[in-house]
Amino acid sequence: MPDNAQQFASDNYSGICPEAWEAMAEANQGHQRAYGDDEWTARAADHFRSLFETDCDVFFAFNGTAANSLALSALCQSYHSVICSETAHVETDECGAPEFFSNGSKLLIAHTEQGKLTPASIREIALKRKDIHYPKPRVVTLTQATEVGTVYRPEEIQAISQTCDELGLNLHMDGARFSNACAFLNCSPAELTWKAGVDVLCFGGTKNGMAVGEAILFFNRDLAEDFDYRCKQAGQLASKMRYLSAPWVGILQNDAWLRYANHANRCAQLLAELVEDVPGVSLMFPVEANGVFLQMSEPAIAALTARGWRFYTFIGAGGARFMCSWDTEEARVRQLAADIREVMAG
Amino acid sequence: MPDNAQQFASDNYSGICPEAWEAMAEANQGHQRAYGDDEWTARAADHFRSLFETDCDVFFAFNGTAANSLALSALCQSYHSVICSETAHVETDECGAPEFFSNGSKLLIAHTEQGKLTPASIREIALKRKDIHYPKPRVVTLTQATEVGTVYRPEEIQAISQTCDELGLNLHMDGARFSNACAFLNCSPAELTWKAGVDVLCFGGTKNGMAVGEAILFFNRDLAEDFDYRCKQAGQLASKMRYLSAPWVGILQNDAWLRYANHANRCAQLLAELVEDVPGVSLMFPVEANGVFLQMSEPAIAALTARGWRFYTFIGAGGARFMCSWDTEEARVRQLAADIREVMAG
Amino acid sequence: MPDNAQQFASDNYSGICPEAWEAMAEANQGHQRAYGDDEWTARAADHFRSLFETDCDVFFAFNGTAANSLALSALCQSYHSVICSETAHVETDECGAPEFFSNGSKLLIAHTEQGKLTPASIREIALKRKDIHYPKPRVVTLTQATEVGTVYRPEEIQAISQTCDELGLNLHMDGARFSNACAFLNCSPAELTWKAGVDVLCFGGTKNGMAVGEAILFFNRDLAEDFDYRCKQAGQLASKMRYLSAPWVGILQNDAWLRYANHANRCAQLLAELVEDVPGVSLMFPVEANGVFLQMSEPAIAALTARGWRFYTFIGAGGARFMCSWDTEEARVRQLAADIREVMAG
Amino acid sequence: MPDNAQQFASDNYSGICPEAWEAMAEANQGHQRAYGDDEWTARAADHFRSLFETDCDVFFAFNGTAANSLALSALCQSYHSVICSETAHVETDECGAPEFFSNGSKLLIAHTEQGKLTPASIREIALKRKDIHYPKPRVVTLTQATEVGTVYRPEEIQAISQTCDELGLNLHMDGARFSNACAFLNCSPAELTWKAGVDVLCFGGTKNGMAVGEAILFFNRDLAEDFDYRCKQAGQLASKMRYLSAPWVGILQNDAWLRYANHANRCAQLLAELVEDVPGVSLMFPVEANGVFLQMSEPAIAALTARGWRFYTFIGAGGARFMCSWDTEEARVRQLAADIREVMAG
Repeated sequence: MPDNAQQFASDNYSGICPEAWEAMAEANQGHQRAYGDDEWTARAADHFRSLFETDCDVFFAFNGTAANSLALSALCQSYHSVICSETAHVETDECGAPEFFSNGSKLLIAHTEQGKLTPASIREIALKRKDIHYPKPRVVTLTQATEVGTVYRPEEIQAISQTCDELGLNLHMDGARFSNACAFLNCSPAELTWKAGVDVLCFGGTKNGMAVGEAILFFNRDLAEDFDYRCKQAGQLASKMRYLSAPWVGILQNDAWLRYANHANRCAQLLAELVEDVPGVSLMFPVEANGVFLQMSEPAIAALTARGWRFYTFIGAGGARFMCSWDTEEARVRQLAADIREVMAG
Repeated sequence: MPDNAQQFASDNYSGICPEAWEAMAEANQGHQRAYGDDEWTARAADHFRSLFETDCDVFFAFNGTAANSLALSALCQSYHSVICSETAHVETDECGAPEFFSNGSKLLIAHTEQGKLTPASIREIALKRKDIHYPKPRVVTLTQATEVGTVYRPEEIQAISQTCDELGLNLHMDGARFSNACAFLNCSPAELTWKAGVDVLCFGGTKNGMAVGEAILFFNRDLAEDFDYRCKQAGQLASKMRYLSAPWVGILQNDAWLRYANHANRCAQLLAELVEDVPGVSLMFPVEANGVFLQMSEPAIAALTARGWRFYTFIGAGGARFMCSWDTEEARVRQLAADIREVMAG
Repeated sequence: MPDNAQQFASDNYSGICPEAWEAMAEANQGHQRAYGDDEWTARAADHFRSLFETDCDVFFAFNGTAANSLALSALCQSYHSVICSETAHVETDECGAPEFFSNGSKLLIAHTEQGKLTPASIREIALKRKDIHYPKPRVVTLTQATEVGTVYRPEEIQAISQTCDELGLNLHMDGARFSNACAFLNCSPAELTWKAGVDVLCFGGTKNGMAVGEAILFFNRDLAEDFDYRCKQAGQLASKMRYLSAPWVGILQNDAWLRYANHANRCAQLLAELVEDVPGVSLMFPVEANGVFLQMSEPAIAALTARGWRFYTFIGAGGARFMCSWDTEEARVRQLAADIREVMAG
Repeated sequence: MPDNAQQFASDNYSGICPEAWEAMAEANQGHQRAYGDDEWTARAADHFRSLFETDCDVFFAFNGTAANSLALSALCQSYHSVICSETAHVETDECGAPEFFSNGSKLLIAHTEQGKLTPASIREIALKRKDIHYPKPRVVTLTQATEVGTVYRPEEIQAISQTCDELGLNLHMDGARFSNACAFLNCSPAELTWKAGVDVLCFGGTKNGMAVGEAILFFNRDLAEDFDYRCKQAGQLASKMRYLSAPWVGILQNDAWLRYANHANRCAQLLAELVEDVPGVSLMFPVEANGVFLQMSEPAIAALTARGWRFYTFIGAGGARFMCSWDTEEARVRQLAADIREVMAG
């Protein structure tokens, strides 16, 4: 049943990477203080502060839904609004979680270019309404890398951050695939976050070899006031926290997080290269992170599915998304590319 | 740092038991469908249905805070109220999570006898106010075993359930230590839940050898309508669900859950027996599950702490709680008992 | 300061009509039981039941924001969604109130024809997503008359209601200008609501000569369970309820509600007729209720404003909305029309 | 049906006083800008600033439930708690409104002396728990005059405010009967609020001759940030705001608010004096504001009821509350006192 043909369906179909697993095994010794008051959690937080070269506040949540929704709810009140892209995961795939955690904050959709917000698109939405009958914009959320596999450059983030400053907006980054962005740009985590003006980052581990436990990093520490209470009340404080934090130690301490992200990105690049000359297939977006979005005919998609490949087609008619993971096998990439070529020829 | 002297602080200071660990290791193979659409989650749900001898609806949440709060919010609306005991964990230790998830449902405190609600105490609270200016009672929540280590008998639950039926109340059971209750009473899970009229059970695994992943079992399946959406929106749907469900398969398939509960209960019994004749020490509550609550002098408590023992004293002046776990060592129990005897003599 | 030139800005710039005022004066005698337990509230509810020819449940809220938001929150849960038009007041002008009262229900925008939803547009949105990662559609809300002054015919409502039945959706009607719709169609209130399949109507009085006090009518009485508690908790239960209900008696008992709506509609018709041959001016929407939406040049709009006229232009570039009220003076309509003709000629 | 015998049931059984009515009539002229952008609202706000001798931020809500709940929700987050007395209206009679508006803030009950919180009782609750598992205390709410008819002295408020400062708590005053407190103490509104350290006052008009429209005064203006949006989203922004604000102008401009409060207080004093020597009757609380709480035998209470008198007995067995209003007639007070004497003799 665990099926190699599922390797491109989603990066959260993948398992736990060895480094995370071993740290968890090591942490599974005897009794430890609960609720984050243990040594592993302290170590993980220190690793983050070291990696980001700054004294940020670090919290853990069970999953990305909660991490992002909690962070957003800390940046605004219920009568405020959050500017996001039309493909933002918080808008399209969280079943209203941001609205729930914030008790009603509205998400406002801004235009994007290749999945990315711009200062102009943010400005347009932020300034459209200034009356009391519409929720006041208070936050911008970026996804880095975006849901369509593109990556914000440091200067793009800086420009957005500047716009946020002008307009009184906090800047949140959904980093479900932050590792892949760092890997693609060969930038330090600091350059892509606080040095570029990001207030809060939700750093995803699940899509990069962990089981649970997204990290929430407040670079603007004023915004983190009582955030520990917020997590607790919202059902996001693990009693046995060490099992969320130890895996982070595992993947942070020897840069496994970056190696795996690089590997996934390379697999995506490889797939893109292998199919670029296939007639009738075109890239929907530049391949920058670990996802490849192909435009193909519907019959070709059906034929691929018939061969057992699993992938998502939520991008619209004729769109197919192939995601690579920390454990994607190169041989499978080549096999998929060959099958794409064949079904297009068929 | 992992400290044997912490063995009595809390049952969630303990680690992951071998059966849960091995199932997790086995589950950690290749790619699997996400969000609970995997084989392990299906198997775990089937194990629950088999164990409870009924076709209940099964969901998983990351922790007890969320499991109980989500279940309660499914049983009432924001303008309703939930009757609980004054020691109920949802009242004393969830930082307002039930109020948050339900958007405002009030918890109403009923009197207890040895930590247990009674039909009379429920009736008193449920009938006290019937006007629109006070939230309408709609749910009763029991904790089984209770936070003070006592256990509801099947006939006690039945009597409460009958009262609930008369008064139009749903019946929820917080089963953070449900295993310990089953072990103590030598009753089947069915006898202590749906056969006695319980609508929903939150079955805790964390305090019995798991890392995360409480199970929510709806015996009254009408109440589970769209509960999967509720979990998702509230940040409680794990993408890699197999890591929450596989451990359940591990501890359910060979009755490890019951063996460990029995072990923890026996350790508590042993401790109680070893100190029962110590002058100045008295049991605050009958020892039925895995906790021992002793009344001692404050200096004695301080002396025990000075010897390195860790335990909670939230019960009030002179009260000390000693919790036993799936992995408590008999030798440590004897050592603790000896130390108690010594400090009392001192 | 009270300015005749403001007469077309909004129907809630108008005052209290004589019939409402007199009933309020009559109600202002001595002491009366509070919280709706008074004779005026009983009489108003009876008037509604008689007017709608059915035994509906009747509640009062202070304003339309609350009436609609409370009604919607009674028709769905936080993880559900509400299908509405892109011009729906609940979407554009309530500052996220529906999301707040429901604790997070998402509004989904469906296409409209002349401001009206259709079975096809509802179906498109309702069926677009069926996975757990997106809020489940549960309610359709219509505005009758619409925000752009058009009116749903009974058969249009019936067709929508049939679609709702097929898809498991509740049907809510925002009747801020329900009176104007009844007047335009010369239909009975029953024909436009429960006979056509509407579950709940929020019947607006404020825009038709009252100060406060929208009525919420549940034709599907199952949906009204404990709605009185919901109103109370949400700060919408008036202690001196008679001042909300008596005005309703005043405008319902001798059909003032219908006369005023007819008057306002006629004023709008008159304005439309008087400007229809003005070069450069065109109607944006058919004039069916009490609003006239004109497309004009921006300079013409500026010139009108310079002459002291007040009106809203939120419809987009070159759009101007002129609203007529229960007390709009025909002479002012003619004066406005003359000014429009002049500025367009200028 | 309007019944003189109801005159002591509640001060919100009373009608609208002439000054409020006349201002409303005067405001009922022509068209006015909506949503508080009218002249009456500006005038009312100025009257408040003048009366309180400070440049406070002024808002209006429809009723006390909303005014107090909105104010409290502005002073804390969902994971915070509010310290109040066990008789506080927000605790006993708002159907969970504070919890709803704040999305889950817990009310913590502190001991009182004659209905009044003390620095010691606040300190006890505020310091009881400091761990993350319990909502962090962030607000103290006082009711002035209290629900049992007693009144905080300026120095008592100052002492409480000092305690709040030490403990990081905001100070809110529920002033449903603030007028009566001012009248009793002969203190200026400023002395009883911001000069004594109160951050926010909800000043009630409904119980003192108005129909709707409680005022919310932020002396600590930082806490009022975006409070207008909060009111709007929560369904508390009146479109025809002039009908909420004009009555305030009416009762503020010639000190009617104070005269009526004095009258109601005097009636209560009179009642207390007339029954003080009646055998078997005793005062439950000092009579300071407009309520008289008598301890009597149950048969006597039944006998009074049989004579047609209406009053509340929620204070517990044998307790009867008699409330006086702006329009209570002295003759009725004497008649009530005579009847009390008779039934006690009977």
